[in-house]
Amino acid sequence: MSNTTLQRLGRRLRLGLIGGSHGFIGPVHRTAARLDDRFELCAGVLSSDAERGLAAATAIGLPAERSYATVEAMIAAEKARPDGIDAVAIMTPNVQHHAAVMAALRAGLHVICDKPVTTTVADAVEIMNTVEATGLVFCLTHCYAAYPMVKQARAMVEAGVIGEVRQIHATYVQGYFATLVEADEKNRTWRFDTRPGTTESLVIGDIGTHAHHLGAYISGLELTQVMADVGPTVPGRTVDDYGALLTRWSNGARGTIWVTNSAAGSEHGLAVRIFGSQGGLEWHQEYPNELKHRRLDGFEQTLTRRLHGALAPAAEWASRIEIGHPEGYQEAFANLYRDFAEAVTARISGQPCNPLALDFPGALDGVRGLRLIEAAVQSTKSGQWTDARAEV
Amino acid sequence: MSNTTLQRLGRRLRLGLIGGSHGFIGPVHRTAARLDDRFELCAGVLSSDAERGLAAATAIGLPAERSYATVEAMIAAEKARPDGIDAVAIMTPNVQHHAAVMAALRAGLHVICDKPVTTTVADAVEIMNTVEATGLVFCLTHCYAAYPMVKQARAMVEAGVIGEVRQIHATYVQGYFATLVEADEKNRTWRFDTRPGTTESLVIGDIGTHAHHLGAYISGLELTQVMADVGPTVPGRTVDDYGALLTRWSNGARGTIWVTNSAAGSEHGLAVRIFGSQGGLEWHQEYPNELKHRRLDGFEQTLTRRLHGALAPAAEWASRIEIGHPEGYQEAFANLYRDFAEAVTARISGQPCNPLALDFPGALDGVRGLRLIEAAVQSTKSGQWTDARAEV
Amino acid sequence: MSNTTLQRLGRRLRLGLIGGSHGFIGPVHRTAARLDDRFELCAGVLSSDAERGLAAATAIGLPAERSYATVEAMIAAEKARPDGIDAVAIMTPNVQHHAAVMAALRAGLHVICDKPVTTTVADAVEIMNTVEATGLVFCLTHCYAAYPMVKQARAMVEAGVIGEVRQIHATYVQGYFATLVEADEKNRTWRFDTRPGTTESLVIGDIGTHAHHLGAYISGLELTQVMADVGPTVPGRTVDDYGALLTRWSNGARGTIWVTNSAAGSEHGLAVRIFGSQGGLEWHQEYPNELKHRRLDGFEQTLTRRLHGALAPAAEWASRIEIGHPEGYQEAFANLYRDFAEAVTARISGQPCNPLALDFPGALDGVRGLRLIEAAVQSTKSGQWTDARAEV
Amino acid sequence: MSNTTLQRLGRRLRLGLIGGSHGFIGPVHRTAARLDDRFELCAGVLSSDAERGLAAATAIGLPAERSYATVEAMIAAEKARPDGIDAVAIMTPNVQHHAAVMAALRAGLHVICDKPVTTTVADAVEIMNTVEATGLVFCLTHCYAAYPMVKQARAMVEAGVIGEVRQIHATYVQGYFATLVEADEKNRTWRFDTRPGTTESLVIGDIGTHAHHLGAYISGLELTQVMADVGPTVPGRTVDDYGALLTRWSNGARGTIWVTNSAAGSEHGLAVRIFGSQGGLEWHQEYPNELKHRRLDGFEQTLTRRLHGALAPAAEWASRIEIGHPEGYQEAFANLYRDFAEAVTARISGQPCNPLALDFPGALDGVRGLRLIEAAVQSTKSGQWTDARAEV
Repeated sequence: MSNTTLQRLGRRLRLGLIGGSHGFIGPVHRTAARLDDRFELCAGVLSSDAERGLAAATAIGLPAERSYATVEAMIAAEKARPDGIDAVAIMTPNVQHHAAVMAALRAGLHVICDKPVTTTVADAVEIMNTVEATGLVFCLTHCYAAYPMVKQARAMVEAGVIGEVRQIHATYVQGYFATLVEADEKNRTWRFDTRPGTTESLVIGDIGTHAHHLGAYISGLELTQVMADVGPTVPGRTVDDYGALLTRWSNGARGTIWVTNSAAGSEHGLAVRIFGSQGGLEWHQEYPNELKHRRLDGFEQTLTRRLHGALAPAAEWASRIEIGHPEGYQEAFANLYRDFAEAVTARISGQPCNPLALDFPGALDGVRGLRLIEAAVQSTKSGQWTDARAEV
Repeated sequence: MSNTTLQRLGRRLRLGLIGGSHGFIGPVHRTAARLDDRFELCAGVLSSDAERGLAAATAIGLPAERSYATVEAMIAAEKARPDGIDAVAIMTPNVQHHAAVMAALRAGLHVICDKPVTTTVADAVEIMNTVEATGLVFCLTHCYAAYPMVKQARAMVEAGVIGEVRQIHATYVQGYFATLVEADEKNRTWRFDTRPGTTESLVIGDIGTHAHHLGAYISGLELTQVMADVGPTVPGRTVDDYGALLTRWSNGARGTIWVTNSAAGSEHGLAVRIFGSQGGLEWHQEYPNELKHRRLDGFEQTLTRRLHGALAPAAEWASRIEIGHPEGYQEAFANLYRDFAEAVTARISGQPCNPLALDFPGALDGVRGLRLIEAAVQSTKSGQWTDARAEV
Repeated sequence: MSNTTLQRLGRRLRLGLIGGSHGFIGPVHRTAARLDDRFELCAGVLSSDAERGLAAATAIGLPAERSYATVEAMIAAEKARPDGIDAVAIMTPNVQHHAAVMAALRAGLHVICDKPVTTTVADAVEIMNTVEATGLVFCLTHCYAAYPMVKQARAMVEAGVIGEVRQIHATYVQGYFATLVEADEKNRTWRFDTRPGTTESLVIGDIGTHAHHLGAYISGLELTQVMADVGPTVPGRTVDDYGALLTRWSNGARGTIWVTNSAAGSEHGLAVRIFGSQGGLEWHQEYPNELKHRRLDGFEQTLTRRLHGALAPAAEWASRIEIGHPEGYQEAFANLYRDFAEAVTARISGQPCNPLALDFPGALDGVRGLRLIEAAVQSTKSGQWTDARAEV
Repeated sequence: MSNTTLQRLGRRLRLGLIGGSHGFIGPVHRTAARLDDRFELCAGVLSSDAERGLAAATAIGLPAERSYATVEAMIAAEKARPDGIDAVAIMTPNVQHHAAVMAALRAGLHVICDKPVTTTVADAVEIMNTVEATGLVFCLTHCYAAYPMVKQARAMVEAGVIGEVRQIHATYVQGYFATLVEADEKNRTWRFDTRPGTTESLVIGDIGTHAHHLGAYISGLELTQVMADVGPTVPGRTVDDYGALLTRWSNGARGTIWVTNSAAGSEHGLAVRIFGSQGGLEWHQEYPNELKHRRLDGFEQTLTRRLHGALAPAAEWASRIEIGHPEGYQEAFANLYRDFAEAVTARISGQPCNPLALDFPGALDGVRGLRLIEAAVQSTKSGQWTDARAEV
């Protein structure tokens, strides 16, 4: 796979990092950015604590003068440089996303941002509108949609292989909060912050949005209604750790979403099963290189990346390695960075973008995720079916 | 495993068959009854159509004179014989269960009956009360609870291995009604009969009760509340083929039940996952000889019948074959017949019963299944959480 | 599936049991005989110890007067009865097979016998010749060949689905002798008897013959040459517990056989993988209801019994239960008894036999198994490739 | 995981690439080098064809002046630069390895090289001796040994968890040469070159060495003897595509190796099963994040990276991502580059190396691989057991 960025621009894209000084997701973003060699990581605000940010920047090899104390400072300084950043990657706590995204967009920078995009629907809508108005590239890192076999599933649904979609069932079943970890203050990260302005539901924001996005992405449908049961299952917990939803989708399809981070002993458990009038598809993130396809007549196929030539172009595009060598989470995440790079390169160079690269989650997906959170919380309170449409 | 019936009675138990002239379940019952050699199948009313019943009886080797036209005729004639039947096995359409069970109980016959036990809660309660009043043995064929690894799961929960139960998720995902099969009149069996008096919900009655029973059996909890979405997913269908339920259990545990017979391409899909404060258990009927146990600390064990000595006595009791030879559905079903035989033998011989043999589903399980059906239908109509307790 | 025996003869076949008073395999044979209701178990020599034999016979419900002290006594007495046995089932230690089989055949009784058929090639050949001369039915219980999905595999190879067979790899990896169990005298069963006349190799006789038969049955090929490494892996052991073989087959195909009962922690491990010019097949006894088919082009299919209509008739014939209910070892074993019954019924009634029922292992398979044992032992001694053909 | 290279040297290591202009493995090496950000890819001889090499260098962003026509030219020029390369990465056809490695070592450059290390034992020994004499870092990319769960397996064997090793079975079963692909000239790559000086056996060199290394690495044993059957299975083929070996290991353990690239329909199929006196381990590259551990008593555990704290330090060291996110081949390959970087950094900085980083394959593994190839070919010719020790 040729490096379009180097070919067209004669250089790598210059990326500014926002957040990621500690925790799980910073290294994931940075490795993803490096994996396909489209980016130079050259500036950053790695922490809202300036000292910690500088230490983190140094540890990853950023020049000290390009480690900034604030997003505003970074944007100002970088815009003034001839070799200033082209884009920012945002991996802060959720509550800081909106300000960072808006600042970057207003400064004409392309943005790749972790999910959920904001903490309120209104903020998400503002971002969506700004992206549209500016024409800048915006990518939301719903990384699971970037696995080759997930793209294959979407392509198969789109091609009518399973017929009209009738059922969508998604789960995300983790176990790392199965005890009252937050009793120990050092575990009480921003995720346990329930002050006004933070994400309304920990579990729906963190993993519910992923399960929902996966179902929406593969099916090509929009979630319309939910009946939800969201709450804590661990005694003493004040945030939620469990969400189960009955769902309705835009074509009338029914389904369920079950997400939890408190299923003791579970590891990851992201999975989706979709059934149509002609057959069904099943995918598990823990075995990402396999997609099950079953048909009405009892036929069951396991699609893998071995099927060169027989896979959808979107799936081939998302895979780097052949003949059964397993690809994983980091490669899927990197697909988003690569596709984001392709889109930004096309914008900068004025040349067309490979359409296969444009299939990444964007601001509308962000709005839909926020609507899911809102509707799930509301439905739980009311005990009623609740509208979940993004109303666009 | 010694044949207690032969030992204590010097003969096999004499069984009268009710129903089973055609369809899937008749041969399953009869094979189950033969497998452990505790029964002599010696009389029957194999069909409500007398001629068809006689043909079916002859085909399975019953003497013509003991093939009867009605349950009442069988009971009367058999009671008059010195070698008359000890018990009846009922495998008719649901709507006929209640009358057959009541007739048998009133005649002092022990009963093994397919599920759901009746079509109304009131009828189920009447049976439960009659069983209690008569002291006769009553077994309801929730066969999945008789798999060795399901018994192992129950024993582990009971022993506190996974701690306090917090989540219960059960699925039963089949595909044989994924098209409008009932458009063809020959497929329009009793299952599609929606006249008053028939089971209120096809899908909850047929498979929802199994999923529910499995969760209840393993957890030792009672279902208290459901929020249900039951209905058809296949255009043109007038019965339901899909049920998704949010659930609450007697200790406050939450969960879901998802059952359907219209997931195109699916085969069986009965599975249960239960999580407690210390770990979780997972079992799939398609791989029945394996039980997954995971703990808080990341430990994951696959229990199989190889674990002789380390398995619960209940699991050892339910298994016949060693060293990895797979056991299946027919063996599980036969476990119910064997345990029913042990209980009946104890009653007849006046000797004590092995307590391991007394762990089979009974009339209360029948009442609970009917309450599930009722609550799921009501909740779907009202869009409200609905009480599902058996109120015993 | 209709009961041809009852239909044609108006009665069940009368079976005499030889062996099976203790150990694993006796109940397996008897359950298999009962499962499809073609047999009446009515006589037996359950042990070479007359007293123990009578006790065992009583425990399974045989009348005392038809429990005999010797095979000869049983044959004489039963031949004299109007309702005497039609056939015998032999489940003694290997060393007693030959005499029992020959006695039965000479008395005109049909025979179903456990494997290996004898302890020497010469004895196996004598049986084969006698079977041919008498025209009696002889079935050797290589039970794994009776699984529906194994029959499906054979049918697919025969139909050319995987093209010309090029590689055959079979394993049987158990663990129950992974320690020096025979140090304890009570574990020193006939299997550890190495006196002249006993089976030359414990591991090849016990499980090597199964792995070999499975490869031969599915491929339709004959084993021609082996290069073997057979011996003990547990210190202090005087019998063998490990055999690995490089193999050549009649069409030039290559392969391996690896069998052991001393792989600590292993359960069953019988599996076969066959590759041809167009694709490959894979089957594992621990998941017997699935057959993997992969093609040159990367296509991978999992065939299950759900594929009604699309499975080979031989596979449909071998399956009793539908829609994903798992079948296991006992059902496969019962298939041999049912097919044996069909063949005997045809012989007795003079009516034609369903050709699907005639596909069970016979005396030639027995000879081939003995040749495998002989060749593996010889090759190990000589360190040379050794001829393994049955030279028929 | 902190970036020791940046910390200690204040810069990344400068890497020169040799080979990789086309084919599968070039991008794998380069991505691996980038993934953990220890290297700057700054020079290269990407092809033996200078023009093609320059084009390839440009495409991956190397400056034209550091794209060289020959290894010698690169070494000379880079040694003259103040910012010249520290090390080379060799990913040419096998036949070019020896010259490139020797030139680099003589120039004082550290080397990371693809396998098999050379085409003759003598050349491999020369490299081993030179590495020892120069004290330079040499890493051979047996990448599978760098998976976290393989490291876990080795640590468990070393800790005695499975007792004394008694059986080692490894397979590598691919299908991409299942047809006569070489009939088409464009597919006739260097792998089909059988001229003197090339690797003696395609299949043993390509994948047999991997299977062997995996067994040796996990068991900690040395292969001592083989009885081999190596040859082509596809009609018309002049190179080999199949190898099956009976093996003996340094402690007397027995085993098998089966490798093929002509198993039609197979994808990858690298797997290893090791049994000791107390239990067994099983690992499959297609599901790399799981390791099965079974014990004598029937206990079966699936170890995954979820087991933080309970995994061996070597396994923790080799894993980047948590809570069930799958890692794959590219991450394993990158582990070798990271560990190589750690070792080179330690050498350059004069500071100690984390011992966990020193567990990568080296020159002795290369010699052993060549001895395997030699012995397998010899044994096939002679039909005899053949010594396979590296005689060091």
